[in-house]
Amino acid sequence: MAQDPLVVFTPSGKRGRVAPGTTVLAAARQLGVDLDSVCGGRGICSKCQVAPAYGEFSKHGVTVAGDALSPWNAVEERYDSKRGLKEGRRLGCQAQIVKDVVIDVPPESQVHKQVVRKAATARDIVMDPATKLYYVEVEEPDMHEPSGDLERLARALHDQWGLADVTADLHILREVQPVLRKGGWTVTVAVHRGSHDHRPRIMEIWPGFHEGGIYGLAIDLGSTTVAAHLCDLADGRVLASAGVMNPQIRFGEDLMSRVSYAMMNPGGDREMTTAVRDAINRLTVEITEEAGIAPALIMEASFVCNPVMHHLLLGIDPVELGQAPFALATADSLTLNAREMDLTAMNDAARVFVLPCIAGHVGADAAAVALSEEPHKSEDLVLIVDVGTNAEILLGNRERVLACSSPTGPAFEGAQISAGQRAAPGAIERVEIDPATKTPRFKVIGSDLWSDDPAFPEATAATGITGICGSGIIEAVAEMRMAGLLDPSGLIGSAAQTGTDRCVADGRTHAYVLHDGRAEGGPLISVTQGDIRAIQLAKSALYAGARLLMDELGVDAVDRVVLAGAFGAHISPKHAMVLGMIPDAPLDKVSSAGNAAGTGARIALCNVTARAEIEQIVRRIHKVETAVEPRFQEHFVAANAIPHATAPFPHLSAAVPLPRVGFNTGAGDDGADGGRRRRRRRA
Amino acid sequence: MAQDPLVVFTPSGKRGRVAPGTTVLAAARQLGVDLDSVCGGRGICSKCQVAPAYGEFSKHGVTVAGDALSPWNAVEERYDSKRGLKEGRRLGCQAQIVKDVVIDVPPESQVHKQVVRKAATARDIVMDPATKLYYVEVEEPDMHEPSGDLERLARALHDQWGLADVTADLHILREVQPVLRKGGWTVTVAVHRGSHDHRPRIMEIWPGFHEGGIYGLAIDLGSTTVAAHLCDLADGRVLASAGVMNPQIRFGEDLMSRVSYAMMNPGGDREMTTAVRDAINRLTVEITEEAGIAPALIMEASFVCNPVMHHLLLGIDPVELGQAPFALATADSLTLNAREMDLTAMNDAARVFVLPCIAGHVGADAAAVALSEEPHKSEDLVLIVDVGTNAEILLGNRERVLACSSPTGPAFEGAQISAGQRAAPGAIERVEIDPATKTPRFKVIGSDLWSDDPAFPEATAATGITGICGSGIIEAVAEMRMAGLLDPSGLIGSAAQTGTDRCVADGRTHAYVLHDGRAEGGPLISVTQGDIRAIQLAKSALYAGARLLMDELGVDAVDRVVLAGAFGAHISPKHAMVLGMIPDAPLDKVSSAGNAAGTGARIALCNVTARAEIEQIVRRIHKVETAVEPRFQEHFVAANAIPHATAPFPHLSAAVPLPRVGFNTGAGDDGADGGRRRRRRRA
Repeated sequence: MAQDPLVVFTPSGKRGRVAPGTTVLAAARQLGVDLDSVCGGRGICSKCQVAPAYGEFSKHGVTVAGDALSPWNAVEERYDSKRGLKEGRRLGCQAQIVKDVVIDVPPESQVHKQVVRKAATARDIVMDPATKLYYVEVEEPDMHEPSGDLERLARALHDQWGLADVTADLHILREVQPVLRKGGWTVTVAVHRGSHDHRPRIMEIWPGFHEGGIYGLAIDLGSTTVAAHLCDLADGRVLASAGVMNPQIRFGEDLMSRVSYAMMNPGGDREMTTAVRDAINRLTVEITEEAGIAPALIMEASFVCNPVMHHLLLGIDPVELGQAPFALATADSLTLNAREMDLTAMNDAARVFVLPCIAGHVGADAAAVALSEEPHKSEDLVLIVDVGTNAEILLGNRERVLACSSPTGPAFEGAQISAGQRAAPGAIERVEIDPATKTPRFKVIGSDLWSDDPAFPEATAATGITGICGSGIIEAVAEMRMAGLLDPSGLIGSAAQTGTDRCVADGRTHAYVLHDGRAEGGPLISVTQGDIRAIQLAKSALYAGARLLMDELGVDAVDRVVLAGAFGAHISPKHAMVLGMIPDAPLDKVSSAGNAAGTGARIALCNVTARAEIEQIVRRIHKVETAVEPRFQEHFVAANAIPHATAPFPHLSAAVPLPRVGFNTGAGDDGADGGRRRRRRRA
Repeated sequence: MAQDPLVVFTPSGKRGRVAPGTTVLAAARQLGVDLDSVCGGRGICSKCQVAPAYGEFSKHGVTVAGDALSPWNAVEERYDSKRGLKEGRRLGCQAQIVKDVVIDVPPESQVHKQVVRKAATARDIVMDPATKLYYVEVEEPDMHEPSGDLERLARALHDQWGLADVTADLHILREVQPVLRKGGWTVTVAVHRGSHDHRPRIMEIWPGFHEGGIYGLAIDLGSTTVAAHLCDLADGRVLASAGVMNPQIRFGEDLMSRVSYAMMNPGGDREMTTAVRDAINRLTVEITEEAGIAPALIMEASFVCNPVMHHLLLGIDPVELGQAPFALATADSLTLNAREMDLTAMNDAARVFVLPCIAGHVGADAAAVALSEEPHKSEDLVLIVDVGTNAEILLGNRERVLACSSPTGPAFEGAQISAGQRAAPGAIERVEIDPATKTPRFKVIGSDLWSDDPAFPEATAATGITGICGSGIIEAVAEMRMAGLLDPSGLIGSAAQTGTDRCVADGRTHAYVLHDGRAEGGPLISVTQGDIRAIQLAKSALYAGARLLMDELGVDAVDRVVLAGAFGAHISPKHAMVLGMIPDAPLDKVSSAGNAAGTGARIALCNVTARAEIEQIVRRIHKVETAVEPRFQEHFVAANAIPHATAPFPHLSAAVPLPRVGFNTGAGDDGADGGRRRRRRRA
């Protein structure tokens, strides 16, 4: 008797013998190969498409013949003519294994697809969303064996997909009968699996096979900006990203002024809750318009935010967060209905996942950074700084992780900066100043050219040069210091002191002109003394928070630094270090992680296991409270100066030769570096 | 070493030795004695109060001394002075066991109290509601060990009450912080345990110890009437009962006309849904006003209703129920939020439990009757008839149970009757007609006197005599037949034919005057020929349904009959049998169960285990579809006559001597009993 044919799947390498005539999809299931299918093998969805290796060659030790699979059939023909199938592809549910064969499962046909992130970052996202689509054929009702249409649908989900004990949202009860009949007793349903405490629930139902996909929003709700990524829940692709200013700004620029507003104004917390929910609704409409999908196809949203934003989003008065002991109403992660939260732009049945908070001042944003950057898995001691209106700071390794939050204010996001704006096309994001001529050049978001490139005016004609964003102002201040335009206390020199007429008088202080677009009807973009002070306050707060965690851990140095920020281009490690934002570290050990909190939100959106994981991680992180820690104030005051880099930054000096020139303004030089000199090694 | 003291609890008889100084509450818990406590042993709630047996006597073999318990203490003194404690009672959480003692747990101190129903009915309700109150002391927040207030509350519920993994509704997140602080870190919470698929959820929170109790509504949602019982969720007491007309009547008197309305009018189902939900909201306000409690203390509602009302309550278009195969959108029981259903009068977090349906024409009302009357546990063959606009009919025993629904119309509820009204004070509910004089006497709801009692006018002065309710019209028609005022076809004789001037001309037919109150400004209450026809149609439908089930089971007689009806006084078995509403049975085997569906609703409201049980029961009941069964029409036509009782009712003839007189109107006599003559024994 001839042996059953051998099938080898790539890239998994899983192999085995199956009875001749077994479909590729059935073989994949028998052998535990990750091959997707939404329509359950009916030749409708094409999610199971595979690339068989034909030809008279040997691969993995198997000789593969052209007739190893059954011939192209009518179902495949129909699919190909209606929607098109890539050259060389077969539908796994149709093609039957006849002889030994090697079959490649392309990435898009894997259930647990990996969303490949840029190489620098720590982890890829494995797709395993809480909400998935299922296509089923449902038995018609029988008067003599009565059962509800919903119960027969649940039985079909059990029999055809192994989903046990499925129930449904109330609105589905209304829709199930007409939709089943419209679809001729076939429907696609979106089912939310949720966590351990819930039965799977049908959230949405479409007649027949639903082509439109389902989507999710990963939302980073910051004090100053609300940013969202629109993701395809099937493969995790980011279809669009968008951001809006947080309209709560009108109640207070920083968190504590919003808490004060809630304390002083009865119903003030409700006003702020309404404002932010409205903004999320507008953002939802905008981002789906940009991507060209219907907002009702958004079935999930995940939120990361600091504790005050967390409470205001949920409709909780944040007053307790304004005073010791900074008690949160709830710290655990939450799964809620979008409807309950008045998030009316997405599907009415959409589910919202809110990441857990670590403590009263260390929120779900820090939790999201931990989920994304995984300090608890790090062998070496890593400092992770997520820059926003509050900086979330994590320090630790696999032994222990500490966290704190530091009130940096909105300067790093371009707010409170004279020419500041949020990161958007037209915003200056990179700056260089020639130390000799004191002439700047810059890049704006939307173009890869420097401003001294002849093609630059044409390349930026569409966007214009509109302002300076967070990363731009950080580089500008650091470059100004390196070019000798600032003294260590942060004072901008006059034209006479600095030797450039770009330093112009600005009231009783000076400003440095980066770009003067007024002749073309554009703005004058300067860095003012006020801008420098705002950045100094912000960076001192950031540095002080990091130092506090180092004190707590008893270390005086870290092995590596990860810089993250929700908005704009990535922060330049070199400039961050020149500015004194972060403690000293070898420059090649400082990396930029982009929007780590946003990435954490995307991970939670796309992977239900990560939701359980983050609860575990968060409970192991030890929080340090900056607000009541006297050493925080000490570090803060000491960190105000913008130091000569060579002394405090031994690692930096080799890479970046800093000018030792300066000018004596009679202010600030003394003791500017006192905090650093007082540092002590305690490890 | 002396032996530990022996404690014997009554009425359970549980006994054991405990360490001296053990509180009675702790001893009860050790020995598995059912002793309640809401405050967890803090001397606040008095739910654990017990009656120790003191004195120099011997009981259960134990000699009990007056000092067997620790002396009356300050906590008991405080409770007694503030709220009073019955003579001889001690607080179980305070009194400590010193010597051998017998302790009686009074019924009100048992967790699983039994609500004693009247002797006739099958089962008592054991209290085990889904929603219960818990008083807890919560740890204050610690800045250095941060956790959310909610998480500390959940931990307290776990530690103090053994409730694991408690979560909370969204609005609790908003309330938890101010309420915890207002209560000085003690709160009472209402927790909903729900079914297997949900974690226990906090639905409501009060500062300190909540004195006000929590309540539930058991709602029998009929086509014609909506009736509710307001129950105390602690002990199951019915505090108030109320009913309103179902406002959907304006869209159609019976179910099929409402289904037609939904078919013919776009949005018609929505109109009807809104109408019935509004009525429930009004009823909620009325019933709580009557009982003097705040509507927001209603935390649960249970619903029984026929399939069309079930769908309209849930917002489901009932169109599929109007045509074969009569598919339900869903048949399973449902636990929903009152808010989702726009039931806005009760607590916003209240949960609604809807009993399961059996089939497209046999609804949750039939399921509730089964839960209450338990035919599946009956040794003998029982026919249970629940009379409403649709009659729910169950036939069976522990071997097998059949069910059907029969469209009786609203006549049995007093609707479509010329002087009909729903059962309310002033309505005629009992009627007797002297066969010799043809003079009636009657009772009205609200008085125990017959109308020929001299004290009757005074006793009914407050209510007046306003109309005739369902049980009254049944008795009136049966009595008219027995008094020779009706021929077997149901025709009312003239004054000449019957010999009484109470039979007056009424258009082309006659009417019998029951009561003429016009002289005192009251109504003229007659039974018209139209009333007789309405009752004949209703009783024929009822009888035909019962016969159909008997055919299905292959029997020609039943062992006993249970008559149930949602509204008004109980139906008189004798009159029901004279009328031919029910098949022949020994009169002493016909009992009246009152509102069995409403009782089923109360059982489901008060006992969470019964909710799981009814799902099991319902799946075992075999449904017979009357609408497509030709024999139903045959039985219906054959049952139209109001028979001479002696021939078809051998059991009845001994008890009720029926007049054999009649009058020949030339109509109806022939074949009036044909249906009965065709009955065949098939068993």
